Amino acid sequence: MPREITAYSNPLVKRVRALREKRHRREEGLFLAEGLRIVAEAEEAGRLPRYIFHAREMRDHPLLRRIANACEAAGGEAVETTADILGKLSGKDNPQTVLGVYDEFETDLAALDRGASGIWLVAQALRDPGNLGTMLRTGDAVGAGGLILVDECVDPFSLEAVRASMGAVFTQAIARASWAEFIGWLRAGPGTLVALSLRTEIDYREPTYPAPTFLLVGNEARGLPAEYEDACDLRVKLPMRGKADSLNAAVATAVMAYTVLSLAV
Amino acid sequence: MPREITAYSNPLVKRVRALREKRHRREEGLFLAEGLRIVAEAEEAGRLPRYIFHAREMRDHPLLRRIANACEAAGGEAVETTADILGKLSGKDNPQTVLGVYDEFETDLAALDRGASGIWLVAQALRDPGNLGTMLRTGDAVGAGGLILVDECVDPFSLEAVRASMGAVFTQAIARASWAEFIGWLRAGPGTLVALSLRTEIDYREPTYPAPTFLLVGNEARGLPAEYEDACDLRVKLPMRGKADSLNAAVATAVMAYTVLSLAV
Repeated sequence: MPREITAYSNPLVKRVRALREKRHRREEGLFLAEGLRIVAEAEEAGRLPRYIFHAREMRDHPLLRRIANACEAAGGEAVETTADILGKLSGKDNPQTVLGVYDEFETDLAALDRGASGIWLVAQALRDPGNLGTMLRTGDAVGAGGLILVDECVDPFSLEAVRASMGAVFTQAIARASWAEFIGWLRAGPGTLVALSLRTEIDYREPTYPAPTFLLVGNEARGLPAEYEDACDLRVKLPMRGKADSLNAAVATAVMAYTVLSLAV
Repeated sequence: MPREITAYSNPLVKRVRALREKRHRREEGLFLAEGLRIVAEAEEAGRLPRYIFHAREMRDHPLLRRIANACEAAGGEAVETTADILGKLSGKDNPQTVLGVYDEFETDLAALDRGASGIWLVAQALRDPGNLGTMLRTGDAVGAGGLILVDECVDPFSLEAVRASMGAVFTQAIARASWAEFIGWLRAGPGTLVALSLRTEIDYREPTYPAPTFLLVGNEARGLPAEYEDACDLRVKLPMRGKADSLNAAVATAVMAYTVLSLAV
């Protein structure tokens, strides 16, 4: 049976609410995911929450019940609470009725199996959590192996990134590495590194993309450092027919990812 | 010479700050755009601000100077102010050093010239201002004629939408219409209406896309109403190879838009 918490001053509520900050996530090794849909996606991917908070009206929802029971059977805790507290945990005025607290995953390059997919997404110095989450979601849609975060990127376990990923944070592998670590790892095995660049004349639909292709996209404002682009096997550009010369980073990644799917060899 | 404002209690500061709310934008017919880059893009598109706020350190910046002078010559006003006030106007901790206040544009379907481009983006019941702005930015990149907002969509003049558009709010035509108005207008001239759908077996790369193609994307959570899809000339889907069955709305639009560019006839 779930414990009931209705007081905002409850220590667990305070602790979970603090997970909206990166510092507390690092200390606890935990992160938040909102919504029954995402919590169900997590369960399907073999991830049970350590804590699962739900609104009273969800008490008898069969899927929620099943996941809450599994959570408790695995040593976790289910908590029935108010809409007000759910809003305070997620920082939203109209909170979801379910919120899960999960162990952060390992994000070691060494744990990746590059043969698992013909396409991998690689982001360098990514700043926007919405872009990061959207890349995970796109990665799931194209059947990518996962997302590799190079250099200092925004936290993939932030509430905004998890939200934008629509659950793909649980289904896509995630690795974090410096550029040196990444390029060392990449060159130790098969893989074509393709940079999305503004400094090339090669149209993105010209090449074929041998599997596994690693699709590298740079920082939202600055793009990729020139020396990173130079270290790639291929630099391609998307045509720009307008006044501006760039696309949103997650959008450019998705256009490329679908193209790699089409032109894979 | 620019007026100097350093007091947060200044009536103009209060008035401009209020433009972050839709209600005040509607009352005043004005909206905000941050950053010299976007303000310069606006000027290039023939739009001068009614007010232009800038930090003291920008006082002698040639581009800022030129736009501020043009603004004043056209009856507008340039205001030199503090980083603190710029932050309060934009709601950001690290505000841009330039902020423009612009007249909202006409958004009548009747004003669109459908022959101006082979591709138009159409969004229905869009909810996220970041998605809307990203669609405008993508529209600019693919050389779209503009973005048509069908039914009740988020405000294209919101600060978040303008920010995500990276200036494309000034270069893309924007129209707002009910579904009945839109479909009536569309069928009164040439145009192929293509729905991005989950309820079709036609892969997005199978058809050709006669110009002008109108690319219709639905609400982030619900997609398009079935009767809207039925009214389209073509329904296509993007392959989904993952656990989830959807992409971010702005991402899906962009993948489609680049495909229409490639497969246009």
